Amino acid sequence: MRLRLVSTVSRQLQRHRWFATSATQHGHEQHNNNNNNKEQGETRGKRFNNGIVYGAATIGGIAAGILLFNELDKQRNPSSSSSPVVVHAQADADEETKARLWHSTKREDLPTYSADDVGKHNNPEAGIWITYGVGVYDVTEFAPNHPGGDKIMMAAGSAIDPFWSIFQQHNTLEVLELLEGFRIGNLNRSDVAVVDEKDSPWSQEPKRHALLKPASERPFNAEPPIGLLPDHFLTPNELFYVRNHLPVPTLQPDEYELELEVESGDGKPQHKLTLEEIKALPKHSVTAAIMCGGNRRSEMTRVKPVKGLSWGAGAVGNAKWSGARLCDVLQAMGVQPSEKLHVIFEGADLDPTSHPYGASIPLSKAMDPRGDVLLAYEMNNEPLSRDHGYPIRVIVPGTVGARNVKWLTRIIVADHESDSHWQQNDYKGFSPSTDWDTVDFSKSLAIQSMPVTSAICTPMPEEHVKVDEEGCITARGYAWSGGGRRIVRVDLTSDGGKTWHVAELEQEDLPDGRHYGWSLWTARLPITSDQKNAQHIEIWAKAVDSAYNVQPEAFEHIWNLRGVLANAYHKVKVKLI
Amino acid sequence: MRLRLVSTVSRQLQRHRWFATSATQHGHEQHNNNNNNKEQGETRGKRFNNGIVYGAATIGGIAAGILLFNELDKQRNPSSSSSPVVVHAQADADEETKARLWHSTKREDLPTYSADDVGKHNNPEAGIWITYGVGVYDVTEFAPNHPGGDKIMMAAGSAIDPFWSIFQQHNTLEVLELLEGFRIGNLNRSDVAVVDEKDSPWSQEPKRHALLKPASERPFNAEPPIGLLPDHFLTPNELFYVRNHLPVPTLQPDEYELELEVESGDGKPQHKLTLEEIKALPKHSVTAAIMCGGNRRSEMTRVKPVKGLSWGAGAVGNAKWSGARLCDVLQAMGVQPSEKLHVIFEGADLDPTSHPYGASIPLSKAMDPRGDVLLAYEMNNEPLSRDHGYPIRVIVPGTVGARNVKWLTRIIVADHESDSHWQQNDYKGFSPSTDWDTVDFSKSLAIQSMPVTSAICTPMPEEHVKVDEEGCITARGYAWSGGGRRIVRVDLTSDGGKTWHVAELEQEDLPDGRHYGWSLWTARLPITSDQKNAQHIEIWAKAVDSAYNVQPEAFEHIWNLRGVLANAYHKVKVKLI
Repeated sequence: MRLRLVSTVSRQLQRHRWFATSATQHGHEQHNNNNNNKEQGETRGKRFNNGIVYGAATIGGIAAGILLFNELDKQRNPSSSSSPVVVHAQADADEETKARLWHSTKREDLPTYSADDVGKHNNPEAGIWITYGVGVYDVTEFAPNHPGGDKIMMAAGSAIDPFWSIFQQHNTLEVLELLEGFRIGNLNRSDVAVVDEKDSPWSQEPKRHALLKPASERPFNAEPPIGLLPDHFLTPNELFYVRNHLPVPTLQPDEYELELEVESGDGKPQHKLTLEEIKALPKHSVTAAIMCGGNRRSEMTRVKPVKGLSWGAGAVGNAKWSGARLCDVLQAMGVQPSEKLHVIFEGADLDPTSHPYGASIPLSKAMDPRGDVLLAYEMNNEPLSRDHGYPIRVIVPGTVGARNVKWLTRIIVADHESDSHWQQNDYKGFSPSTDWDTVDFSKSLAIQSMPVTSAICTPMPEEHVKVDEEGCITARGYAWSGGGRRIVRVDLTSDGGKTWHVAELEQEDLPDGRHYGWSLWTARLPITSDQKNAQHIEIWAKAVDSAYNVQPEAFEHIWNLRGVLANAYHKVKVKLI
Repeated sequence: MRLRLVSTVSRQLQRHRWFATSATQHGHEQHNNNNNNKEQGETRGKRFNNGIVYGAATIGGIAAGILLFNELDKQRNPSSSSSPVVVHAQADADEETKARLWHSTKREDLPTYSADDVGKHNNPEAGIWITYGVGVYDVTEFAPNHPGGDKIMMAAGSAIDPFWSIFQQHNTLEVLELLEGFRIGNLNRSDVAVVDEKDSPWSQEPKRHALLKPASERPFNAEPPIGLLPDHFLTPNELFYVRNHLPVPTLQPDEYELELEVESGDGKPQHKLTLEEIKALPKHSVTAAIMCGGNRRSEMTRVKPVKGLSWGAGAVGNAKWSGARLCDVLQAMGVQPSEKLHVIFEGADLDPTSHPYGASIPLSKAMDPRGDVLLAYEMNNEPLSRDHGYPIRVIVPGTVGARNVKWLTRIIVADHESDSHWQQNDYKGFSPSTDWDTVDFSKSLAIQSMPVTSAICTPMPEEHVKVDEEGCITARGYAWSGGGRRIVRVDLTSDGGKTWHVAELEQEDLPDGRHYGWSLWTARLPITSDQKNAQHIEIWAKAVDSAYNVQPEAFEHIWNLRGVLANAYHKVKVKLI
């Protein structure tokens, strides 16, 4: 079984090496006429051979993950039974079980194809076929609209099983139904991709804190209960939200090397730094909140469903990060400031084709000493945990979490952004009327600096809150803005904005433009007798940053198909006792 | 008459030198233990002697200014007959005329006081009396709530006539009514302050373009018709909005000197630069929009009245500014980067006590080459006009207009912000529930970087717009964000946000963080048959900047008592034909 898996996967990878290479070339041609395709191709090729240990995980864990996730959502907002998420949870379990069997069931009404038959359909001209289990699917028409962009082409003419094992967001009833609609046949049983758990890339995931509630298990994505967040100005490491895009790699500190390249210019300097060498550089610390681009997506989803993990307001944490300054490293390499260059980061976490997770930031941010970009090896004075990027994670303060690449193994100064899926076809904002038929990721800016936001952490939705002797209730939460912009005010209302109350802020005393940590806030809200009689109120929070940007009121007009940048007023309904 | 004026004014200025000096000392004590009060006091004293030529202007021009302003507002939004502004315009003219006579009419029911009697009441303990025309007023209780802050103390125990001649925002029915409520007596006729026009500081105002519609005549504040704005990526100089806080000074280029001081640190380097010396420095150009902090205030006023000039959406312009870089000058002076210092700017425009207009910015902005702060002598390749700061204006790209000090004569590097009224007690944002009873200016951040905003310039409100052959109408406007943040998208809707249409942008190709110019936009809006039948639509515009900050929906929740930062969605109702 193992051998067959290897041959199936390696065949499909070989078959699609053209794609990976041409995609890379395309990215470079677009931005850089001085690229070195030969070296690139060889690097990619070498990586492919490491990719063959990938296999699909069993489906069992997924259902558990969905249950957990729904449980979390119910805890978050037990009243919102009309939310799409909860509707999904209430979908007929039989329907779901049936859907999960489709791709492993032969359809007698359809013809049977060999893997070779399928393999010939690996491009738009010949048609794009894929297999999943025993099913053969023609996705030619669908491919241009694939939410994951052209990553779907990696599976063209072959099995998607190992990809869906990594990108488990596909394991939903909706996606399975969509796929079965493309069914054109059955795959020869002897060609079906099969995997076992022993060689699964998930077999070495770290243990996590029981309080982290997963939005997905594989890759592991989880947030703490937000009620705990205001208790610590520096979020305890074990409660810090985890956002992994791929399996967690295992890096040995004594074997660790960080590769550094300058792709542009005349020469092509190459440097390598061991962990010890990075630690020997001057050590700097910065307090920075890291926030997922999809934080609070579950609120946006209530307007209209979006693609993405259904995060609550807990996909954020605040920590003191310590490490070497990237600007020191780049300066030592002789890199000159430029506003046209980018710094590309690659992690050791690999997708099924051995492409690493990648992202980039402008060089001007990386070179600015006030940008405080760190090659961090400590989080709150402790070595990074594996889930947070051990041994090195780049910390890009004020910038969306996705650019804070974990398990950092390679830095490239280039005249183009990272060509990774996550930089090019994800983590971008769009107009509310842009849908999957009209979206053009190439036209939108990759998120870097994040907009101003806030959340009410206590009381929790539907909590029973006692009005105190002074006739008030107390609310607590966090507020943050990207780009080093300090929070200057948080306003709260319990009467729909007729009266606003200014919260007390707990924040560091740092200059504006370099104020990367979050602000915790506490507000006292007077309760009127009318409110007391009505026994419930809705609390709204909005923050203002040092550029006097303020949160938008509602999700309706900032809705976007990826559910990112969900920074509308945070609203929490509570019961008064 | 002239002589009596001089003696009256100089007496009151001498009497209140204590205030100016102590206010200055207070400002420095608060921030700087190394201040040099003696030198400061001498400088101030010298300036006082220049102040005695100030006198009150005749009231005649004010009524004309109000009429003009109301006319402008009617043109802007003829349908909004319920707006406070228009209500004001419709107030009984007789009432207003009567109010304007109060302070020049002796009240037989009240006692008569001499100027000496009044002069003894110049502090909170003794009571604060002022005179206006023949009226004597006790403003002891009101003084702490004065919207202009402690500037009112400059007139304590003396005549406010020369101050109100400069700060003509007092010449409204509301203020006159408020004042008359404080009436306690009549002033001896022989002590009444009288002025003539010949020595008025307003006698040398420049000629302005007829299309500039004044929001106030003295000081001159005017904006162009916004329909003209999208016609030029670089706003023509003569149509560029003018925001003056004081009379326009007349500076001779051959006598011009820019003083430079470093107030902090061990030494106290003093430098002077002539105009020729500034022009001999390397010349840099930057395209930057300058926007008044009160731009679009007239829209915020419709929620609830605010204090301040009733600007439309035309208090913004975009120009190519050229001059020497402030960072080059500061570096040559040996100033080291610091995040704790500020750069204070003083203009040659003086208030009645000879205090200059002043403002400050963080030193980190001034020292950053990417901050592009210029000592500008050219605007769109022409020498600055007098209204725009001839011969030198500091251009602080991305920063509220008020910090772009005109007629720049002095730069001070200090460990505190400018102690000017405009830095300390104006141009700050507050919560919607903060009123003049609860406001504490010292607790709020002086506006620097401005938030994202946009405006629909065409069609104009209530314009009759023809639906074209393709069933669309075209809208045009501008969008801008502070801090060098590029506009990445402008969305428009004509159906209350059900569908949004993305505008085409015209903007410079500059890196984010240094994108200081505005973006002009054009959008095509399809008109449904329902809309066509209804014959009217409301268009909304909202912009998104590179930090993905977005405009708030409505003014209700961003209202603030000074009417600044009015960046909610711009909404324009038009008729379809």
